[in-house]
Amino acid sequence: MSTARRTLITGGDLVSTTSTTPTDVLVEGERVVALLAPGTQIAAEDRIDATGCYVLPGGVDVHTHMEMPFGGTEASDTFETGTRAAAFGGTTTVVDFVVQRTGEVVERALETWHAKAAGNSAVDYGFHMILGGVDEDSLTAMDSLVAHEGITSFKLFMAYPGVFYSDDGQILRAMQRATDNGATIMMHAENGIAIDVLVQQALAAGNTDPVFHGLTRPAELEAEAVNRAIALAAVAGGTPLYVVHVSASQALARIAAERTAGANVFAETCPQYLYLTLEDHLGAGGPGSFEGAKYACSTPLRSKHERHAADLWQGLRTDDLAVVSTDHCPFCFNDQKQLGVGDFSKIPNGMGGVEHRLDLVHQGVVDGHLSLQRWVETCSTTPARMFGMYPRKGAIAPGSDADIVVYDPSATTRISARTHHMNIDYSAFEGFELTGGVRTVLSRGRTIVDRGTYLGSPSHGQFVRRGLSQYLR
Amino acid sequence: MSTARRTLITGGDLVSTTSTTPTDVLVEGERVVALLAPGTQIAAEDRIDATGCYVLPGGVDVHTHMEMPFGGTEASDTFETGTRAAAFGGTTTVVDFVVQRTGEVVERALETWHAKAAGNSAVDYGFHMILGGVDEDSLTAMDSLVAHEGITSFKLFMAYPGVFYSDDGQILRAMQRATDNGATIMMHAENGIAIDVLVQQALAAGNTDPVFHGLTRPAELEAEAVNRAIALAAVAGGTPLYVVHVSASQALARIAAERTAGANVFAETCPQYLYLTLEDHLGAGGPGSFEGAKYACSTPLRSKHERHAADLWQGLRTDDLAVVSTDHCPFCFNDQKQLGVGDFSKIPNGMGGVEHRLDLVHQGVVDGHLSLQRWVETCSTTPARMFGMYPRKGAIAPGSDADIVVYDPSATTRISARTHHMNIDYSAFEGFELTGGVRTVLSRGRTIVDRGTYLGSPSHGQFVRRGLSQYLR
Amino acid sequence: MSTARRTLITGGDLVSTTSTTPTDVLVEGERVVALLAPGTQIAAEDRIDATGCYVLPGGVDVHTHMEMPFGGTEASDTFETGTRAAAFGGTTTVVDFVVQRTGEVVERALETWHAKAAGNSAVDYGFHMILGGVDEDSLTAMDSLVAHEGITSFKLFMAYPGVFYSDDGQILRAMQRATDNGATIMMHAENGIAIDVLVQQALAAGNTDPVFHGLTRPAELEAEAVNRAIALAAVAGGTPLYVVHVSASQALARIAAERTAGANVFAETCPQYLYLTLEDHLGAGGPGSFEGAKYACSTPLRSKHERHAADLWQGLRTDDLAVVSTDHCPFCFNDQKQLGVGDFSKIPNGMGGVEHRLDLVHQGVVDGHLSLQRWVETCSTTPARMFGMYPRKGAIAPGSDADIVVYDPSATTRISARTHHMNIDYSAFEGFELTGGVRTVLSRGRTIVDRGTYLGSPSHGQFVRRGLSQYLR
Amino acid sequence: MSTARRTLITGGDLVSTTSTTPTDVLVEGERVVALLAPGTQIAAEDRIDATGCYVLPGGVDVHTHMEMPFGGTEASDTFETGTRAAAFGGTTTVVDFVVQRTGEVVERALETWHAKAAGNSAVDYGFHMILGGVDEDSLTAMDSLVAHEGITSFKLFMAYPGVFYSDDGQILRAMQRATDNGATIMMHAENGIAIDVLVQQALAAGNTDPVFHGLTRPAELEAEAVNRAIALAAVAGGTPLYVVHVSASQALARIAAERTAGANVFAETCPQYLYLTLEDHLGAGGPGSFEGAKYACSTPLRSKHERHAADLWQGLRTDDLAVVSTDHCPFCFNDQKQLGVGDFSKIPNGMGGVEHRLDLVHQGVVDGHLSLQRWVETCSTTPARMFGMYPRKGAIAPGSDADIVVYDPSATTRISARTHHMNIDYSAFEGFELTGGVRTVLSRGRTIVDRGTYLGSPSHGQFVRRGLSQYLR
Repeated sequence: MSTARRTLITGGDLVSTTSTTPTDVLVEGERVVALLAPGTQIAAEDRIDATGCYVLPGGVDVHTHMEMPFGGTEASDTFETGTRAAAFGGTTTVVDFVVQRTGEVVERALETWHAKAAGNSAVDYGFHMILGGVDEDSLTAMDSLVAHEGITSFKLFMAYPGVFYSDDGQILRAMQRATDNGATIMMHAENGIAIDVLVQQALAAGNTDPVFHGLTRPAELEAEAVNRAIALAAVAGGTPLYVVHVSASQALARIAAERTAGANVFAETCPQYLYLTLEDHLGAGGPGSFEGAKYACSTPLRSKHERHAADLWQGLRTDDLAVVSTDHCPFCFNDQKQLGVGDFSKIPNGMGGVEHRLDLVHQGVVDGHLSLQRWVETCSTTPARMFGMYPRKGAIAPGSDADIVVYDPSATTRISARTHHMNIDYSAFEGFELTGGVRTVLSRGRTIVDRGTYLGSPSHGQFVRRGLSQYLR
Repeated sequence: MSTARRTLITGGDLVSTTSTTPTDVLVEGERVVALLAPGTQIAAEDRIDATGCYVLPGGVDVHTHMEMPFGGTEASDTFETGTRAAAFGGTTTVVDFVVQRTGEVVERALETWHAKAAGNSAVDYGFHMILGGVDEDSLTAMDSLVAHEGITSFKLFMAYPGVFYSDDGQILRAMQRATDNGATIMMHAENGIAIDVLVQQALAAGNTDPVFHGLTRPAELEAEAVNRAIALAAVAGGTPLYVVHVSASQALARIAAERTAGANVFAETCPQYLYLTLEDHLGAGGPGSFEGAKYACSTPLRSKHERHAADLWQGLRTDDLAVVSTDHCPFCFNDQKQLGVGDFSKIPNGMGGVEHRLDLVHQGVVDGHLSLQRWVETCSTTPARMFGMYPRKGAIAPGSDADIVVYDPSATTRISARTHHMNIDYSAFEGFELTGGVRTVLSRGRTIVDRGTYLGSPSHGQFVRRGLSQYLR
Repeated sequence: MSTARRTLITGGDLVSTTSTTPTDVLVEGERVVALLAPGTQIAAEDRIDATGCYVLPGGVDVHTHMEMPFGGTEASDTFETGTRAAAFGGTTTVVDFVVQRTGEVVERALETWHAKAAGNSAVDYGFHMILGGVDEDSLTAMDSLVAHEGITSFKLFMAYPGVFYSDDGQILRAMQRATDNGATIMMHAENGIAIDVLVQQALAAGNTDPVFHGLTRPAELEAEAVNRAIALAAVAGGTPLYVVHVSASQALARIAAERTAGANVFAETCPQYLYLTLEDHLGAGGPGSFEGAKYACSTPLRSKHERHAADLWQGLRTDDLAVVSTDHCPFCFNDQKQLGVGDFSKIPNGMGGVEHRLDLVHQGVVDGHLSLQRWVETCSTTPARMFGMYPRKGAIAPGSDADIVVYDPSATTRISARTHHMNIDYSAFEGFELTGGVRTVLSRGRTIVDRGTYLGSPSHGQFVRRGLSQYLR
Repeated sequence: MSTARRTLITGGDLVSTTSTTPTDVLVEGERVVALLAPGTQIAAEDRIDATGCYVLPGGVDVHTHMEMPFGGTEASDTFETGTRAAAFGGTTTVVDFVVQRTGEVVERALETWHAKAAGNSAVDYGFHMILGGVDEDSLTAMDSLVAHEGITSFKLFMAYPGVFYSDDGQILRAMQRATDNGATIMMHAENGIAIDVLVQQALAAGNTDPVFHGLTRPAELEAEAVNRAIALAAVAGGTPLYVVHVSASQALARIAAERTAGANVFAETCPQYLYLTLEDHLGAGGPGSFEGAKYACSTPLRSKHERHAADLWQGLRTDDLAVVSTDHCPFCFNDQKQLGVGDFSKIPNGMGGVEHRLDLVHQGVVDGHLSLQRWVETCSTTPARMFGMYPRKGAIAPGSDADIVVYDPSATTRISARTHHMNIDYSAFEGFELTGGVRTVLSRGRTIVDRGTYLGSPSHGQFVRRGLSQYLR
């Protein structure tokens, strides 16, 4: 018989994918054991008063890069700093990318990542595997990781030739293998071969400022790559395909068409594409300034003079975009980003965001872009289902891990590098003032954040062995 | 303090829109009060053992016509017989259509329907209102029904000139009103004016057999009407639009395109369109036989040589079809259907189906067309959300009505007029043998069907006041 | 042996649908008898020096309304004034609309129009027939007009209920008849039933200014009607369909999609939709002014803040718009248009344009919207082929009528009511200064306009018996 | 004054892109000097009686490979045998492909081709340039060929890695150059990288028969490549793009969509895709037979169980396919094709067809797929305009080259390797019996074929310096 301590969360509105309803939640040890109509009597040692607040499943961020080596440096958040920042923002599960580079043994790369994360995570974590070199060995490793290691999603790059790039033959082979073993292929969809031509031409023409990062990665080349990935997945027999960090209307349109046709094609976007634009490269500091480097990420920010952001919000409403992740990949401005002075192509690509996802998407609810239901669905439930962690993660239901956020819709959240908890010296969202804020965060039953105070520990987070996608049609 | 009797349903797998998970369900009086991890101790007077079974929210059938006057006769199920049959099939809520004909006062029509249903329903019921005559009075009545009567959806017909037909001006005005008061417009989308020409030409050419019912209602005229309804809803300011009984691929394609564009356009299909075809008119009894009249419904069954059924299943997977309803509108063959001997246009349109919806769609799960999640979503959760009854209906959650089905996936259900409970002398699905079957049905906490025995009463069912749609984007 | 006088046109560039090539043209009597490489010796009594000029087939304007009774008045150009103005503008064939109103006998209406035109036309003319009342008599008359009268195109209206409006059943029946006899159905595609609701609502709200003419005819209701006409034509067996005066991007998109699918669906636009906008209603005279009435035509002018004009030019490039006609239907401002003071719905719909079509579309060539080839194709060759007059009209080829325009691309044309030849007291294009101008116009071998002087006579123009469309796929 | 001999072609029906009209044609020396209404008196030394026949501009075949080295052998027709066969079939201009392989100097390749063709061609010929290695030198050569050599179209391959393949960066650079110098990029659009994986997998699985040639080149990979080429052309600033040998519905659909959007995207198909199917690989000789190798070409033949051929005919009607060429690339069966015994990937890809294009497409007219106008347009006029030879080629007009075909629509043409004039030991169309046949062929005024007798000479044909495309929007 269980002797674990019980906590009853009372008075809050439970937000699920289908409703917002007053419900009490009983936690016993690490798990939720009961949902109760308010007023239902049940014994509990502890209580959390959630009156006036939403109670929602902890956020699931399926796209982070902690300590990732890239562009001659390394993403500035360790698992310790990055997952703690995640916890502050109500994200209780991250899925980070193990990196296998060409020539590396997949299993060794996995060991490296386990070593980085174990004992250093404030919240639970899983791994995707980046396949930087598709060959017989890595294809065999795919089967093994799916069967034995709880790693069921593999990311390929159509961009970054010479670094992560796979050619269409490699992509096809990896997809065929995924069709067989049930894994999901995640795709960075940009035509990197063509982009490299544009980059070289821009540099040759003396166009070295950060804004040229965006200008050399046109939306058509994102849409093209998306179309190609979809075609290859079809030829491979209908491989589940998940397109990461969609930023262009044209790419979204192609995904939506394929989804209407019933294919297992899915996509995410990130808060930066909902709020920031190509013009931010220019606005920061004026012409000639290097401030714009803060906004360099790939896919790039798109122009405010086009419909991208509005279309992305619409895609989130229609589920053509199923997930909001962060692509958290921070590089400090006063140090790492400076590698790109005089040559935008050397700016480390990425920005920090793991801390503010729930707040930024909740602002979309406040602004009328999204329902509360879709907020929870895109930030927690669907990512958990998409990547085989449901209902352990992504739900508040009997048997689920007690990963719970008490969210105060009337709070105010101000974003600033001075106050955030990520290990990065700037914020691309500096000065944003948002309605709503995280009050209390439980991870597997333990309160790790409460009213701005961190109560967790780096030894708390555990590795999550994931199953196959639960979001297929 | 509550003294209501408690029932604990144990051992089953709770099927929700997102998962299938072992969960115990505690019912107290008429409501669900707790969901519990299996093994969690809680006091309960009664127990239902659901081991080996699914536990799901009672079915919600939002398209029935009990005792509806049509084609010179009246649908053969009363509320008493029809809702009892619904109960046998695991449907615990029906939403029936009040009929206002041209010239009738809306409020009188509503009184008539309340009189028919009250005290005669085995399960809970709501009402939509058919507006057969859009004018200032009925527009005013719309506001009143939304505000005071719990009737928040209004059906218009682009077919049946002279009977239910509204012209585009009437439709536009009703939609404008719905935009203002938040109601949903339900649309029978077929171009009845053009169809009537084809019908008259067929009859004039001596083509009187039942199959000409289908042949004079081409798919293009369903798609055309759908397109027109969508355009009018856009002109009316974005009225929520729900297209009933979609049967044609072309109509679905138009709906899907509009949904991708983010509009509040929704649709249902019915089991007959998933399983039966135009050719059934012919197969039954051979040329010259009148047996084909059994299959006359509008929209009509479509040809098996086209892709309609496959596309409809796909639409259910993609949510472009959000709901499966029955359009239950039974007419006896040996009597009522005979009105159409020698003139297919006089066959009363409709078939009985309220009893077999859950089983027929579950067969789609067995056949690989649909997930368990989508089964529950299309048959229970979404219809409840679509028509403002959630989470009272359509969910098993603390606070919800205890409308619960214990469903045995290993049972066999055989459909036959000899054994069904609907008041109709034939079944269009005669001889179907399906995998799975309803074991026990609770309505507001009362067991009304158990292992084939009816335990309910006509005084049990209550009118459900509905709110506005909860499924808008 | 022929003894007719010969004229050789030398030195010009013959513009055809495929090239612009130095070519001499030999006219004998009323016909072209030879095309010759420059310098080829041939006997001719007369010469016209076209050095530096284009030589093109005379314009064919397939949409004019001379003396048409409408809105309580009558279009202000008679055949005499209207066709003379056409001649000044290089148009040597017009196809005017005979009007059959509900209850009228088709043949009588035709007699009326022959009486108006005969002996009163500066250029050749044909007739379409407006069917204002589709019934058995008019359907029979369709066959007869096609077989015996050289009238092979019939116009129906989805707008103007109570005036020209046909319901979908009437449209379907007329289309079926056209499928049988080979005629083309021309369609005024706007949902007039819905528009009338918007008009009444605007007036009831006190919105009586001319701009509300445009605001009550939204683009969606043009596109809807186009879609419906296409669907009905498909149900009727693939009737050739020609959509008149397309002004909305959405309508064009629907036409283009159907054309890609291979259907015999065609469309025209008019110069007013390429150059004028909804905002012209407002710009003329400021708020409260009635000057905007000058721009009231149906379909209406569309907003400059949308993409309509750019899309229409594109449609002309892609042949999704095959024809530019004028919809010439002039009403004087100081008189007829005043009927709409205080009630925009009483403004006679239409504007004068028969004189300036070639110049306005040539300006599109100058501006880079269109090739010289498409100029000739959309303004002369295709309309002649579309309506069964080719190669008698629309071509400069041996055997063709010698309808020839010598066009000076370096001239300047200024449009003004003070100088134009149409019988209307204003020009919607007042002040336009265009590059290029008509120098000399031959109609059936006779020079009727030369350097701004009219040399023709009202007894010259002859009725053109037309055959079936030569533009079908 | 000219003293060249004159020939008058009388009594025939001149078929142009817009009409079929009785017209006499006067030839003087190498050129057409006059078109005349029948009966017009004019002096001529010679007469050709074309009574009962069509008179049309000589065919223009813009896709031939004479003596092309490929797959370890060489296409079996020399310019002498191939162009003589072309003449027999009414084709009076071919545009052949010069091949520059990686590392080769473009100008040297051109010299090689001039040496092959000069003095060896029965008909006039032009050249496209295959760029097998895009680098700075070949890009510079592009400018030079456009400006000085009359070569204005450059073909790239997305297939055949290691042979002709260009990567997306090379394609983008060549397109950018073409945007600047006005050239057209021709594209073999198949994803060769992915195809190679499928080919290797098929061989590894022991699937070596000829049919696997088709099965390893799925339609999706043609459509994907088309989409990619379109995207790259857009990024390159709107480069004119011409997709060769389209065989798949999906590829055509993508082209059609882009054309509706107004882009300068064009495409051709070939007779083999209109008449032959994937199943021909199997039907010839039965399982295990190597006869199927006769049908190996790339893009491959598509399955008769899909809609490809019907869609291609439709595309020809709508001009989404603007040209029919042959992709004439013959390899003898008893010799060259045998290279692929036991390994389908070693079968030289291609078939002979230069002789029968006019007849095979005319059969489409007989069968109701196409109009006479489109026959002439797709086989002569448009290819001449597309590749900058109009109206010298592709037209019968004053000043045009007197390349003229007298075509007897009541003749019968039987295709057989025993009787054809191509240097290939089989015909993929063996046994076809077609309605219509070439009677007389003039090339630059000289009769080179008459009633089955060859009257030409290999020294007759001349190189055609081409200008930029005349078919742009």
